[in-house]
Amino acid sequence: MSTIMINATLVTVNEQDETLLQGALGFEQGRITYVGPTPTDLSDYDEVIDGKGQIVMPGLVNTHGHAAMSLLRGYADDLPLQEWLETKMWPLEGQYTAEHVKWGTYLSLIEMLRTGTTSFVDMYDHMDQVAEAVAESGLRASLCRGVIGFPPEAQQAKLAEARSFAQNWHRQAEGRITTMMAPHSPYTCTPDYIRQIVAAAQELDLPMHIHMSETAREVEQNVKDYGLRPPAHLAELGVFDRPTLVAHAVHLNDEEIDLLASHNVHVSHNPISNLKLASGVARLPEMLEKGITVSLGTDSSASNNNLNLFEEIKMSALLHKGVEQNPVVVPAQQALRLATRDGAKAMFIGEQTGSLEVGKKADFIVIRADRAHFHPFHDPVSHLVYATSGYDVQDVWVDGKQLVSNGSLLTIDEERVISEANRMFEQLQR
Amino acid sequence: MSTIMINATLVTVNEQDETLLQGALGFEQGRITYVGPTPTDLSDYDEVIDGKGQIVMPGLVNTHGHAAMSLLRGYADDLPLQEWLETKMWPLEGQYTAEHVKWGTYLSLIEMLRTGTTSFVDMYDHMDQVAEAVAESGLRASLCRGVIGFPPEAQQAKLAEARSFAQNWHRQAEGRITTMMAPHSPYTCTPDYIRQIVAAAQELDLPMHIHMSETAREVEQNVKDYGLRPPAHLAELGVFDRPTLVAHAVHLNDEEIDLLASHNVHVSHNPISNLKLASGVARLPEMLEKGITVSLGTDSSASNNNLNLFEEIKMSALLHKGVEQNPVVVPAQQALRLATRDGAKAMFIGEQTGSLEVGKKADFIVIRADRAHFHPFHDPVSHLVYATSGYDVQDVWVDGKQLVSNGSLLTIDEERVISEANRMFEQLQR
Repeated sequence: MSTIMINATLVTVNEQDETLLQGALGFEQGRITYVGPTPTDLSDYDEVIDGKGQIVMPGLVNTHGHAAMSLLRGYADDLPLQEWLETKMWPLEGQYTAEHVKWGTYLSLIEMLRTGTTSFVDMYDHMDQVAEAVAESGLRASLCRGVIGFPPEAQQAKLAEARSFAQNWHRQAEGRITTMMAPHSPYTCTPDYIRQIVAAAQELDLPMHIHMSETAREVEQNVKDYGLRPPAHLAELGVFDRPTLVAHAVHLNDEEIDLLASHNVHVSHNPISNLKLASGVARLPEMLEKGITVSLGTDSSASNNNLNLFEEIKMSALLHKGVEQNPVVVPAQQALRLATRDGAKAMFIGEQTGSLEVGKKADFIVIRADRAHFHPFHDPVSHLVYATSGYDVQDVWVDGKQLVSNGSLLTIDEERVISEANRMFEQLQR
Repeated sequence: MSTIMINATLVTVNEQDETLLQGALGFEQGRITYVGPTPTDLSDYDEVIDGKGQIVMPGLVNTHGHAAMSLLRGYADDLPLQEWLETKMWPLEGQYTAEHVKWGTYLSLIEMLRTGTTSFVDMYDHMDQVAEAVAESGLRASLCRGVIGFPPEAQQAKLAEARSFAQNWHRQAEGRITTMMAPHSPYTCTPDYIRQIVAAAQELDLPMHIHMSETAREVEQNVKDYGLRPPAHLAELGVFDRPTLVAHAVHLNDEEIDLLASHNVHVSHNPISNLKLASGVARLPEMLEKGITVSLGTDSSASNNNLNLFEEIKMSALLHKGVEQNPVVVPAQQALRLATRDGAKAMFIGEQTGSLEVGKKADFIVIRADRAHFHPFHDPVSHLVYATSGYDVQDVWVDGKQLVSNGSLLTIDEERVISEANRMFEQLQR
């Protein structure tokens, strides 16, 4: 079946960042077949949707998170990082079963869909549950079993599990799921263990995903433990010889920005989580200037506390202007690109999605622009970056299939998920 | 008629920051008559509203803005400040007529109501239009004719206008409107002119509102022009001998924080506008530590670009943690207080509104907490600060009168306002 949405404002985020008024988007069998002015003859299409008064743009791409942690939303805020981790997060996460992961993930998928995220990266445990939820719900994702090297005797079992998960699920769910290999971080995995994980990624021909240089403390500790700061350490272990997506990258010096650029390491910038946990402010303008592929991530809703990526878009456009006292850095169009085109590239699916272009997957969102904060209506990109709330998303399509219609979820039973998520949280011993 | 809303989660923001589960809020003739557990006997009330699954909290207070500037939303972003002002804002504002102010203001009132703001401060020109819109629409506001001392020959006419506006509208619209006297800033008004405005405020017994220390450049210029930084300059001119609300206060040294505290000067912190215009990051934690009454403002939607105060709440809780690398500053409850109880105090109506307490005006908002991002539901304050979008506001009441019902405006014709606002913008010569 072929479908065309007509008369809409199309924010393509293509190479030229074109925006079309009275534009049309045609798609068939999951792929975009037409992007251009609304045609006068629509007889080629089986279905015509009127997009008058609406903005159509690529679905958002959230490149770092832990969906199952939504069960811990608001459980602990405003604490020092170590206290937050050691007395709050870890004790509860330690009780997680596959069922917790299932319902926590579904709760996150609802939020992501309702606010326009169509592709995401997830690093956690019990990943079969996550993959099954993604397969069922229709989103696109790159998933990885995050591996922590403690206790040492569990290392081989965890690596085997990560490897078999990555192998089993890569290119599954009609190709919507891809996988990566993910040592959690240089401070939770020994050098030798990281080398083994790199070797497995090499063998399976998969990219790597890892937390890096999130806090100043972690950077210092790395120097104490291994004589190197995290980027040089990971480079030496061969991580950057694989395609790699690092999360956070807050504390980088100039040489490290050059190092990431020269190895084509992709970065997931998580500005809200980095502020909330007091990690600091990443050097986004400098990373962009050096040509690094930077994307946006929410991190988990335990440190955010939501998965509304429109907030990261606005934050990335605002924060660096204020902190560097330079109002021209990260202009609106660039912020939008981080969350779409560059996000898809960062998670290694840039050939498939991230912009409205013929041949790409039909992953797009429809935004109702009839509310006051979209007016006067003359620069849709500005309004999408600086004015929207995220809850202006009306319809969501992935792979040419509609997942959200007028704010209602078509593939997930929202009421049941909310009830199960509350039940799961209540079960945890606090 | 007496009304009670029952079975709701009540976030009172009273002195003890009490939150009540299964709480009830009773009100009659515009005032709150009951705050407590849901009573078993409801026969005293003419009307009973079920608030199950909803959060009831004080309406938000936005203490700095220029509502009419919403017509310039998204017209110019990401530019150096002087270029933005001189080539974009001022040329268009110079063309503003009373009609532009009217429709720009209505557009802003829609946004404020939809996102839960019930009281606001506005400083602009053609203020009769603003006051009439406030009177019609039912919000609460403190309004002032912002006075710029150029050209010098217009000074007396402007002062007379500001004075007569302040006199005519103070305590009008069933007491919902109060007024202030507002020299725009120390860099747009000469010392002598500021003294005259202070004298008028003294005579009318009104507070003062003024922009202060928004940019580093402005602070330097003040030293060049008058040998003093702005706070000492304004203190010398007698501004702080009146009750005063200053907007921005970004560039303050320790002595200036002490000065503001000792004069009980109130501050409107505008973190999003300060980031977007690259003004910098105000020292919120230090101001709070010294006991200054700090509140939150959006500034205009030309530098924000919306009036969704929930964004300022989250930003104020996040930004200072990240910039000071201290995760315990500005905890959630404090951020919420800035936008409610302390906001009302900052705009000199703290006796009347800003918290849910018996005897205060029935200014409150109802938030639907059935969406995924409010779950697991266990800490409503955390979710209000860190997870809500602002568009979870369902109902808004001011002075015991309902202004928004299930997201629809009861006192403003939204469709007409949007159409007129677009027409007004199109008229401007760009």
